[in-house]
Amino acid sequence: MDRVFNFSAGPSIMPEVALKTAAAEMLNYKDSGMSVMEMSHRSKVFIEIANNTTALLKEIMSIPDNYKILFLQGGASLQFAMVPLNLMTNKKIDLLDTGNWAAAALKEAKRFGTVNVVASSKESNYDHIPNLDPAKFDAAADYFHITSNNTIYGTRMTDNWPCTGDVPLVCDMSSNILSEVYDVSKFGLIYAGAQKNMGPAGVTVVIIREDLLERTSEDLPTMMKYTTHVAAESMYNTPPTYGIYLAGLVYQWIKDLGGVVAMQKINEEKAKILYDAIDNSALFKGTVAVKDRSLMNITFVTGNEELDAKFIKEAEKLGMVNLKGYRTVGGMRASMYNAMPVEGAKALAEFMKKFEVENK
Amino acid sequence: MDRVFNFSAGPSIMPEVALKTAAAEMLNYKDSGMSVMEMSHRSKVFIEIANNTTALLKEIMSIPDNYKILFLQGGASLQFAMVPLNLMTNKKIDLLDTGNWAAAALKEAKRFGTVNVVASSKESNYDHIPNLDPAKFDAAADYFHITSNNTIYGTRMTDNWPCTGDVPLVCDMSSNILSEVYDVSKFGLIYAGAQKNMGPAGVTVVIIREDLLERTSEDLPTMMKYTTHVAAESMYNTPPTYGIYLAGLVYQWIKDLGGVVAMQKINEEKAKILYDAIDNSALFKGTVAVKDRSLMNITFVTGNEELDAKFIKEAEKLGMVNLKGYRTVGGMRASMYNAMPVEGAKALAEFMKKFEVENK
Repeated sequence: MDRVFNFSAGPSIMPEVALKTAAAEMLNYKDSGMSVMEMSHRSKVFIEIANNTTALLKEIMSIPDNYKILFLQGGASLQFAMVPLNLMTNKKIDLLDTGNWAAAALKEAKRFGTVNVVASSKESNYDHIPNLDPAKFDAAADYFHITSNNTIYGTRMTDNWPCTGDVPLVCDMSSNILSEVYDVSKFGLIYAGAQKNMGPAGVTVVIIREDLLERTSEDLPTMMKYTTHVAAESMYNTPPTYGIYLAGLVYQWIKDLGGVVAMQKINEEKAKILYDAIDNSALFKGTVAVKDRSLMNITFVTGNEELDAKFIKEAEKLGMVNLKGYRTVGGMRASMYNAMPVEGAKALAEFMKKFEVENK
Repeated sequence: MDRVFNFSAGPSIMPEVALKTAAAEMLNYKDSGMSVMEMSHRSKVFIEIANNTTALLKEIMSIPDNYKILFLQGGASLQFAMVPLNLMTNKKIDLLDTGNWAAAALKEAKRFGTVNVVASSKESNYDHIPNLDPAKFDAAADYFHITSNNTIYGTRMTDNWPCTGDVPLVCDMSSNILSEVYDVSKFGLIYAGAQKNMGPAGVTVVIIREDLLERTSEDLPTMMKYTTHVAAESMYNTPPTYGIYLAGLVYQWIKDLGGVVAMQKINEEKAKILYDAIDNSALFKGTVAVKDRSLMNITFVTGNEELDAKFIKEAEKLGMVNLKGYRTVGGMRASMYNAMPVEGAKALAEFMKKFEVENK
């Protein structure tokens, strides 16, 4: 079998050029005589790789100078604890509950203080981003937590971002970082696991505004303090070196494409192909509010579980894999992260039409 | 340049066959149509990889059935906090201080309780493993912490293991796991970063005796609890999938060689080549007590810093790299982890002889 169109929700498809470079350099990186995996993280050659990765992310996300960029371990799940441990000084936060991952952040934050759920779409199975009532915001909250894209449900924040004034906005951007242009200066802290739009699992990016570092208590475990990792430029202990190298290859690929502006256009094009296929179909229908549709995770159903299963099975035979929806939503989910080529979206849309004709 | 002999202390040399397999499978793992990096950690194909990695480690280390094997993130440095957070119920432990990493474990454990330093060789710059006086052991300690091999200084535990009775022995085995045969049943908990003998940085192996899991408090952050990861078989959140795959390739390589018994013989042979070269030299001398010599990290000096620098520089030209000793020891350190071939040890020993003749 050749390479498939991999619609996995994460870990997920990576740019083929990054994988090809990694394969070609596996035994001998740029005449160093060794794999990137074999390099001391303190060596000149690896520090160049790490610095390049950081500089590329800063460039393609236009990260202002008053932000620190960290490459950590533990995924967003560890950030669910690190964020409150480091930033909760008044022991209370605001949170917008837009899906399972927002709920996971909520559950963990509750261990450390009070969480004011400003709004939630849980009752309608997270099928939309709820409207926000600023009267419910707490001006003394330590931060306001949001999730920019909801992998499982297929929604994303669009024009409904909260205006939180002096309360820092903390955003779990795991499933759509680098997929569209965001103004980093509007956030206090952004975190994201790498395994959707940035590289292999095992690397977590944290972008934190410098003034927030003053909140970290000396009493926290050393590895749980942002200040530890900032002081050591993410090299307090051995970082996930190979993942950082791959993230750099992915960032370079985005830069070469024309940056996040160009990436966003491609993502909008891909999403339009599938949403048009859904909207023009009598068989398939979307599962979320049109205004909140995700560019990354496109969820749809036929309304018939057997037919859904048949669709998924036949698509797989054609090399379009991992289309099964999450169990709480059912149906299909086509995750089309940055690395999914337009051809993948077209192939799936064409198959949807064909399937509909054959299953009238 | 061809591949070098990489004497890096970590991250470090990996088995060439593992790297070649990884390169060959980078774009399409076993006809799956995707890279291992691109696979959902919940997919059948990846779960097979993860189960195979775990089964291989269990087999080659002869891990008894009453131990759980975890593949976590955060390195030994995160374990310095997780071990006391999970295991300290009486809030006091015994610890043997044999080097920088033992001291780092000590410093972090002190955040959570009292640490009784049973013995330390700090005053002689950790040039030996101190003798143990069982009268100094605390029978009510939550555990007794040791470091089996001291990367920086070049010492290891040999015949001087503490008999701790009912007090569980906790061992940081980061720098010599799988290098010699250990009886896992003598330990309560073993932890090790992967980046020396097991694979790329970003994977941490924890082997924990089941009864110790009862100590974990419900109040800890979810990701800091061993019970979280045991219940989810290391899949509570997305694990470092690619690192787990590579660890499996390394374990398979060890198994194919004849297991850890065979690996130990090779390591003893390599170490003997270098220690003989040191002992038969009038120029080079070892820096640690002969009885405590490491099989993994061989430290030596000429006694003349300029000559040390010249040696390191000339060796590098011959493709023997990363021989500079740690700053607190100086001189040279040849780290010869499992993946270093016997030829590497021979090449270095021969160059030592040549260098001595040329620099009389």
